[in-house]
Amino acid sequence: MSAVSADEVALQQKLRALRAAPPLHPAGSPEQRVIDLQLQLPPPPKPGGVYRQLVAVGDLLYVAGLGPSQADGSIICGKVSEEPKEGQISIQEGHQAGRALGLTLLSLLKDGTGDLDQVVRVVKVLGFVNCTECFKETYTVINGFSELMRDVFGEAGLGTRSAVGMASLPDNMSAEVEVVLQMRWKY
Amino acid sequence: MSAVSADEVALQQKLRALRAAPPLHPAGSPEQRVIDLQLQLPPPPKPGGVYRQLVAVGDLLYVAGLGPSQADGSIICGKVSEEPKEGQISIQEGHQAGRALGLTLLSLLKDGTGDLDQVVRVVKVLGFVNCTECFKETYTVINGFSELMRDVFGEAGLGTRSAVGMASLPDNMSAEVEVVLQMRWKY
Amino acid sequence: MSAVSADEVALQQKLRALRAAPPLHPAGSPEQRVIDLQLQLPPPPKPGGVYRQLVAVGDLLYVAGLGPSQADGSIICGKVSEEPKEGQISIQEGHQAGRALGLTLLSLLKDGTGDLDQVVRVVKVLGFVNCTECFKETYTVINGFSELMRDVFGEAGLGTRSAVGMASLPDNMSAEVEVVLQMRWKY
Repeated sequence: MSAVSADEVALQQKLRALRAAPPLHPAGSPEQRVIDLQLQLPPPPKPGGVYRQLVAVGDLLYVAGLGPSQADGSIICGKVSEEPKEGQISIQEGHQAGRALGLTLLSLLKDGTGDLDQVVRVVKVLGFVNCTECFKETYTVINGFSELMRDVFGEAGLGTRSAVGMASLPDNMSAEVEVVLQMRWKY
Repeated sequence: MSAVSADEVALQQKLRALRAAPPLHPAGSPEQRVIDLQLQLPPPPKPGGVYRQLVAVGDLLYVAGLGPSQADGSIICGKVSEEPKEGQISIQEGHQAGRALGLTLLSLLKDGTGDLDQVVRVVKVLGFVNCTECFKETYTVINGFSELMRDVFGEAGLGTRSAVGMASLPDNMSAEVEVVLQMRWKY
Repeated sequence: MSAVSADEVALQQKLRALRAAPPLHPAGSPEQRVIDLQLQLPPPPKPGGVYRQLVAVGDLLYVAGLGPSQADGSIICGKVSEEPKEGQISIQEGHQAGRALGLTLLSLLKDGTGDLDQVVRVVKVLGFVNCTECFKETYTVINGFSELMRDVFGEAGLGTRSAVGMASLPDNMSAEVEVVLQMRWKY
């Protein structure tokens, strides 16, 4: 007769929870959520240099750093600052830039993979914030991105994350994210 | 009769060494090393935003960016500088902050996965140092982290690494690491 | 009789193209390209701290952050600036530093894996540019790297990429890349 300690049972449960993909949003599939939330996606971003925007290796999809496009295709620019001067933006505007990063990612994924319902989960996000020296609330800016991901993909929209403050970003864009997703490819 | 050149044999040996996981510390398992080194781990860090701290995909474990927690749970703050002014810290203190990053990672791993002996190796470390412009010794700060990893995990504690200087980090923390580990899951 | 919509056929083609490795350079294998382009590789870089330069996990090869070595082993230093002052470098010199990053990577790969023809593709590049605050052309610097990768590996040399501006880099080097490659190991 085998005996398993309560500690081992607890560890088993902990690891099974850690290793399983989290659930999608209970209110609908990602494609349905984009419709229900009436999200206005910007045009798909174009690469700002000599690189690819999407690379798939097995079930992982690597996404190149992308900027906060708006519905008209323009990009939100300027450093984020607690006390914005000429050419800078406020924390609240930075949070909106973060949300724009999310809309831009959705646009790129739809264009490049055809169907958001192939997303299993967000694995990893590296968030860059173009900000003044000593800016503290990088997380507030990137939360704008993460909140949208959770609205669309549910708990599966949250991966690991870093949110760091940069001396500069390409063309003075306000923020940038670099993302890794896990996919369930239809083909 | 087949002949293999000396070059091919050398390449074979090189690649086998590269692709194998390095050995753990000869003096004991990671759990044992934490005890033997009398490491005082801080409380497990809490996420500083809308994200997960750990995501497992197959045998890879992605760890969110974490800061240098101290035993009382407070976080080491201030830019690292060769000539620290009010509110800044020295290179030596920065090295201690790097070590604190390592202790914080151990605490998170124990809390989130239950058992450090599941770690096969550190794969990749991205070290961010909150520093004054033109600060040169980012590596000294992140060496504080890497030395602790080697003390606990032996050669398996050393992965690839970058150590870069940031305009700012969340809440003015002095340093941050984002880590990928390879695991041998018990369950 | 089964009917597949034109939309599904288009999605199938899109995903097959996305998931396949891109072709190598039509003019020759990577080893041959290095010869044909008469590339002068610098000596293999040494780790600038407590870490490994290469870690292989399955068919992925993680490469530690590396700097722009020149043929004599010296490293290109100084911030990149639109209007370079004493100790800084121009955008054009920054582009050359990007190319030097590529030559340094080739040198490290040859030294550490023996044979460039094992590279299937570049998966991901994180490019750090040591620059003045508000510098906008981080992409021009890292394009120097990417263009060399495309010259040597063809379309397979282009992965996803971010190119971001840093407050500082180790020992004031001008730029740094951190790379993930997919490999077809001979052994």
